[in-house]
Amino acid sequence: MITGHVFIATSLDGYIARENGDLDWLLKYNDAGEDHGYNDFINRIDVIVMGRGTYESVRKMGEWFYTRPVLVLSAKLSAQTVPAELTGKVRFSDKSPRDAMAMLSSEGSRHVYVDGGQVIQSFLKCRMISDMVITTVPILLGAGRTLFGKGQRDLELVQKNTRSFPSGLVQSAYDIIR
Amino acid sequence: MITGHVFIATSLDGYIARENGDLDWLLKYNDAGEDHGYNDFINRIDVIVMGRGTYESVRKMGEWFYTRPVLVLSAKLSAQTVPAELTGKVRFSDKSPRDAMAMLSSEGSRHVYVDGGQVIQSFLKCRMISDMVITTVPILLGAGRTLFGKGQRDLELVQKNTRSFPSGLVQSAYDIIR
Repeated sequence: MITGHVFIATSLDGYIARENGDLDWLLKYNDAGEDHGYNDFINRIDVIVMGRGTYESVRKMGEWFYTRPVLVLSAKLSAQTVPAELTGKVRFSDKSPRDAMAMLSSEGSRHVYVDGGQVIQSFLKCRMISDMVITTVPILLGAGRTLFGKGQRDLELVQKNTRSFPSGLVQSAYDIIR
Repeated sequence: MITGHVFIATSLDGYIARENGDLDWLLKYNDAGEDHGYNDFINRIDVIVMGRGTYESVRKMGEWFYTRPVLVLSAKLSAQTVPAELTGKVRFSDKSPRDAMAMLSSEGSRHVYVDGGQVIQSFLKCRMISDMVITTVPILLGAGRTLFGKGQRDLELVQKNTRSFPSGLVQSAYDIIR
């Protein structure tokens, strides 16, 4: 069975990026010399699914740092050609979450990293997320792109474990009951 | 010096109550037999400040369970008389956060419990909160009254400690640098 997995950082007030996509408030924690578990997480992942917002934010950063194939779900981008330097690394698609997961499953993928606020929200609504690791950054931003947005119906989670880091990050893992 | 303190629970997506004020998703955790630290917290508190939303939600629950004097900041309520059964327990005022704190300080209060989303937000903007204990409930509600709202500027916090409970609650304490 194919499963969706979330690994994401959010401000204490629930934003994953500033309105313009900036991650300055988050990226400084990369220098803390702490292992926040990303490598362990990504090693279990076959393919990454994201939306246009995340894709464009990452592109703006310059270097393409993903070590797994990426599927970008975007009606707008699916009408375009993947940039030459990302050929073989990135695909664009306008599929629904369910159809995208079916396609990835048929290709042999089992563990899908679902990244970006809007894509996470749409996958949650389709009950296509199995678990989430959420790292909370000790800052209030007051505005930005939200992790969960609105419109979800009650969705109960099972908290599995929580740890905090000297830098002040707090990381909790949640299972989603299907 | 008088200081403001927050002790509040929020859903994982940042809501402290449903749109209609309901706390059903939260109150069931009261039965878990866990000590989430409320009594230790309230024992250090001289007076409680809240807004109309919190006041009316608590009134709807029936019993008045606060063991400290309560100041309700509300332009609408300040034109009304406190209900007879709450005389001596509750005051209504239309003061600003700063003026309310000055009044409470002149009365000898030192530690103020600041409760309710909008009041917390306005006190944060005035830098009148010293620390916050935030307990995260493992549920997504999708809609409701937000803890932090919008409009805050970057406010960096210092994470002091974090603990999780068998029920799945995750509680973190943050200091606010003035």
